[in-house]
Amino acid sequence: MALKLHGAPMSTCTARVLFCLHEKEADFELVPVDLFAAEHMQPPFLAKNPFGLIPVLEDGDLTLFESRAITAYLCEKLKESGTDLIRHQNLKEAATVKQWMEVEAHHFNPAISKIVFQFNVAPLLGKAPDQAIIDENLEKLGKVLEVYEQRLRTSKYVAGDFYSLADLHHIPYTHYFMKTSCAKVINDRPHVKAWWEDISSRPAFMKVAPGMTYGEK
Amino acid sequence: MALKLHGAPMSTCTARVLFCLHEKEADFELVPVDLFAAEHMQPPFLAKNPFGLIPVLEDGDLTLFESRAITAYLCEKLKESGTDLIRHQNLKEAATVKQWMEVEAHHFNPAISKIVFQFNVAPLLGKAPDQAIIDENLEKLGKVLEVYEQRLRTSKYVAGDFYSLADLHHIPYTHYFMKTSCAKVINDRPHVKAWWEDISSRPAFMKVAPGMTYGEK
Ligand SMILES: N[C@@H](CCC(=O)N[C@@H](CS)C(=O)NCC(=O)O)C(=O)O
Ligand SMILES: N[C@@H](CCC(=O)N[C@@H](CS)C(=O)NCC(=O)O)C(=O)O
Repeated sequence: MALKLHGAPMSTCTARVLFCLHEKEADFELVPVDLFAAEHMQPPFLAKNPFGLIPVLEDGDLTLFESRAITAYLCEKLKESGTDLIRHQNLKEAATVKQWMEVEAHHFNPAISKIVFQFNVAPLLGKAPDQAIIDENLEKLGKVLEVYEQRLRTSKYVAGDFYSLADLHHIPYTHYFMKTSCAKVINDRPHVKAWWEDISSRPAFMKVAPGMTYGEK
Repeated sequence: MALKLHGAPMSTCTARVLFCLHEKEADFELVPVDLFAAEHMQPPFLAKNPFGLIPVLEDGDLTLFESRAITAYLCEKLKESGTDLIRHQNLKEAATVKQWMEVEAHHFNPAISKIVFQFNVAPLLGKAPDQAIIDENLEKLGKVLEVYEQRLRTSKYVAGDFYSLADLHHIPYTHYFMKTSCAKVINDRPHVKAWWEDISSRPAFMKVAPGMTYGEK
């Protein structure tokens, strides 16, 4: 039975899982959830995720929410297929992948998601982007990227000289971020820029990015 | 060679790893880092964690930061010892553990950590707790705990009828939170209260909690 992913291609968290599904060459079906019609707040969806957020994966009798838990599960389940994103044969490399996944979740994501929200979501809610929020988070993001710049001087990807889930998890927000007037924060850091150009030119990226049209309508 | 944990017992993120080390019956040495002397901002420590945060684990040639990456690594490395916190023999249970670890990281922790900060850290910085921040985050935490209350009606622990890393990760902040005047948010929810009483009476808790004296000096 094919995997079912409930979500919307333009959503960053759904896209995170889509990138992973393509890297793992998985057979799946995308079941669209209409956020604008508040489908995620209705009982059938809330039964899958009580937090009312996309994405949700269904695999037979397993229902799983939280994008990063879904990608980790897919990488374990599909160990032998597609790209090895978790270094499952090397405990220490696997630990370093986990460490950088945590850096993405606790340092990178809180800052970049607030900036992207101001540019892409606030206008849809009829508000102008709040420059104070953008500035505050740009400063935080700059500090995080300074660490990345040093790290990427000595390894091609964040966790080592191999592409991993830790890199992949960064893609959705960075993709939207690069379309804003703040992209300089990445472009001015040569190693971060080269890393971004590398991870955003993978075949999986080419398949998912065209659906990421949030803020464009 | 014994594991070395650099940190401070009163720090929530260090305590998270300490709980895990005790559950896994690991042989380890705690190397104290003096935050008040800003030891974590000095080059020797920054070489271990460029973000300048505790804890850091050293295991031979592996240096690992981010508390939740460290606990996940310890559970993989010490699979056969102590409590099985990641359900390593059951892919679907393991996925559910990961899902609730993400819930802790993305829903529970952002709200509770801001409240505990106001009660325990702000006063040390010479500021009164900011009631507006407390109220805003209490409301968020209440919504998250509502989901927990429903969940814990049907399973003894968050990920199922087994204690896991997903429960353990909640302990440090909840322990400090229960000493504040906001504890009602937990005590008023019978299943959440029973869960807290259970997870805070494990032998590992008894070993680590006495060192958690932040805000008491
Ligand atoms: N931590 C969750 C976040 C999920 C999330 O925020 N999803 C957004 C779309 S990217 C959503 O469902 N938004 C709908 C809403 O907020 O009403 C994950 O990684 O899956
Ligand atoms: N996400 C990190 C957070 C680490 C963290 O914030 N550590 C605190 C102690 S709980 C710290 O080192 N604070 C020192 C400071 O902020 O200067 C983890 O889970 O390890």
